[in-house]
Amino acid sequence: MTKSIKIGVAGLGTVGGGVTEILTRNADLLAARAGARLELAAVSARDRSRARSVDLSHVDWHADAERLADVDELDIIVETIGGDEGVARRLVEAALAKGKSVVTANKALIAKHGAALAALAEENGTALRFEAAVAGGIPIIEALRTNFAANRITRAYGILNGTCNYILSEMEETGQSFDDVLAEAQRLGYAEADPTFDVDGIDAAHKLAILAGIAFGSRPNFAAMHVEGIRSLSATELQYADELGCRIKLLAFTSQTDEGIELRVHPAMVPKANPIAQIAGALNGVTVEGDFVNKCVLEGPGAGAGPTASAVVGDIISVARGDRSPAFGIPAAELKALPVIPMERRIGAYYLRLPVIDQPGVLADISAILRDEGVSIESLLQHGRDPGEEVSVVITTHDVEEGRMRRVLARVDRLDTVVASPVLVRIEQF
Amino acid sequence: MTKSIKIGVAGLGTVGGGVTEILTRNADLLAARAGARLELAAVSARDRSRARSVDLSHVDWHADAERLADVDELDIIVETIGGDEGVARRLVEAALAKGKSVVTANKALIAKHGAALAALAEENGTALRFEAAVAGGIPIIEALRTNFAANRITRAYGILNGTCNYILSEMEETGQSFDDVLAEAQRLGYAEADPTFDVDGIDAAHKLAILAGIAFGSRPNFAAMHVEGIRSLSATELQYADELGCRIKLLAFTSQTDEGIELRVHPAMVPKANPIAQIAGALNGVTVEGDFVNKCVLEGPGAGAGPTASAVVGDIISVARGDRSPAFGIPAAELKALPVIPMERRIGAYYLRLPVIDQPGVLADISAILRDEGVSIESLLQHGRDPGEEVSVVITTHDVEEGRMRRVLARVDRLDTVVASPVLVRIEQF
Repeated sequence: MTKSIKIGVAGLGTVGGGVTEILTRNADLLAARAGARLELAAVSARDRSRARSVDLSHVDWHADAERLADVDELDIIVETIGGDEGVARRLVEAALAKGKSVVTANKALIAKHGAALAALAEENGTALRFEAAVAGGIPIIEALRTNFAANRITRAYGILNGTCNYILSEMEETGQSFDDVLAEAQRLGYAEADPTFDVDGIDAAHKLAILAGIAFGSRPNFAAMHVEGIRSLSATELQYADELGCRIKLLAFTSQTDEGIELRVHPAMVPKANPIAQIAGALNGVTVEGDFVNKCVLEGPGAGAGPTASAVVGDIISVARGDRSPAFGIPAAELKALPVIPMERRIGAYYLRLPVIDQPGVLADISAILRDEGVSIESLLQHGRDPGEEVSVVITTHDVEEGRMRRVLARVDRLDTVVASPVLVRIEQF
Repeated sequence: MTKSIKIGVAGLGTVGGGVTEILTRNADLLAARAGARLELAAVSARDRSRARSVDLSHVDWHADAERLADVDELDIIVETIGGDEGVARRLVEAALAKGKSVVTANKALIAKHGAALAALAEENGTALRFEAAVAGGIPIIEALRTNFAANRITRAYGILNGTCNYILSEMEETGQSFDDVLAEAQRLGYAEADPTFDVDGIDAAHKLAILAGIAFGSRPNFAAMHVEGIRSLSATELQYADELGCRIKLLAFTSQTDEGIELRVHPAMVPKANPIAQIAGALNGVTVEGDFVNKCVLEGPGAGAGPTASAVVGDIISVARGDRSPAFGIPAAELKALPVIPMERRIGAYYLRLPVIDQPGVLADISAILRDEGVSIESLLQHGRDPGEEVSVVITTHDVEEGRMRRVLARVDRLDTVVASPVLVRIEQF
């Protein structure tokens, strides 16, 4: 085996560091599997003096990551800098333009500029790969791009953010509030100091935009997505979910119908028996449904140095073997701007909790509104307390369009007997 | 798009029929994803007059499947005839020798002749693919061959036979005997008229041999495997498993240590919280553990026309895109004959049920034998009945070498107070 493929790694944080570690520790194994030695030839990071998990003294060091694109001997550039603009974008563009293959873990970059970058890769006869950008070590990108490619994909959904799943799992187990669990997650390193991207659903939305791009041949459309996070969820909802045989998960969901695609990230109640409800702690899990494969579920670690770097190096091996097929599975020019179905048109079941004063006529008022809006009640829970005190009325509905539920929500909120904001959670029965 | 790839399908049973259906119904989608039109150009099946789910009147018909290898215009041969010798083997060999790529769903063929066929494919610069041979629609082969290829795989295990899983799930739910559930499964089409391959573990063993081949770069070694089926399992064991917080599954397990590889198929108790225990009915599920990815679980339909054909056509797309990498992920010449660790050396926990006469001294005799053989008890169950009657003593052990448990088994079987054959079931705590 004399062939050698030279790799430049931009960014030596969690993922980049993990990549250098795999390339070093599993070098012989990788050479056999890739059909060529994978040589870590250059790296770029801000702080050269920082201790690294592997010896990088023999590797070319570049202070400016963008310059990696100019190093002629490099075959593959690994981008783990992050961010959808700036140096990450410029490096990826420059590398592809020079005919170098690019492997990246950068979900924001691909969610926003994926179609243009894929086109650039094709024009230059090279590969753009981003398995690590979605669900870390879980091979969901390649599964959609290749293994399930025989299918008309109907839906793909699951848990794409480990931080939120960890927080929800802890809230469920301990009964603690979101704020308390978040604080603990930050202490343990499961959540960032600024948790916005994770807990507000943006990270999951980036990943979903990429999945939908491959599943439906759609141009990744982050802007049109409905995105809700988990900040406003209270332990009360998790308890009622439990009582209803469900768990609350931050769900990322996309589907295709004749009218367009659904693209949404929001908390949802999922029946406990569903594999997605059983994804616990910081793990991720994705279900794919297609017209021939029926339904497959992939679960595993959605983040972390090892799993994410495993996905990056998996992509490197595939590129080393010669795969230059289009990044989204079909030529970039054929990616369509599919219409995104507005959230008001979602059809499904709903959980509605109304904090009310327990007095005669309350239920009559509420049920009249539901009737007026054409919403059919599936179950109603009200645990007895003393008359005249505050109590929660919990209603689950049969399938109904979201627009109707929003009108119900606005109207019940105006009732005098409803003493605090009503809470609406979508129920998914996959 | 003018490029066209011509495909010949040998065998029009469940899988072959499904392949022709996908190629026909999803033709435009496949063309975009494969970068070429996938043209069903020739088929071979015994009965030309039989009704097919798609119109094959424009397709060349060959009575002799082997002749497909001689049709110059064919680029890819799909082999769904089955069997590890005879026409299936001869067709695959002839096609590869002529430089045609081969996609097969034939687990027995690959388990027995996979290394030689992979070598033949490499010599002729063509591809041999068999995603459909293991776990139907679940993309476990490609996951191991490519996506997890950055990892030193430590273990791969799971449920590879849907018939057994269906039978065990039904036995668990209904309390019925193996024979009764098997009869019903045969009536419903979940089990073959001759169920030997499934219920005796042979089908799962073929698949495991293939997985181990890719995971560890080992020559598939079906002969050295420890294989037990589920025929002798009684409803009693499933009830005790439930009481112990476990389910009994037909487990296929392979691992690599410094001493060699483990290769075994047998019933095992798996804690209910483990994803593998939650695979219900006819589904399959596989867990892969590697040094960087940690642990991923893939689950879905392990059989059936749609899912299996989905895997076949996924392979076709990959070959159409140009992938000619080695079938087992590394060159066939580098596949090693790794030593298989004898079953006596398995280390783990055990469940032991002893039907005894409930009289003084029974437990003393049993515990003395366990002590003599160095087996440490983890729990002991004995539900009270009237003294002097038959009762089951159920013991679970701490981790111990299987050889010791076999000696325990032989010795307790000779005790006068043990009135029927003792039952041993392995416990797995992944």
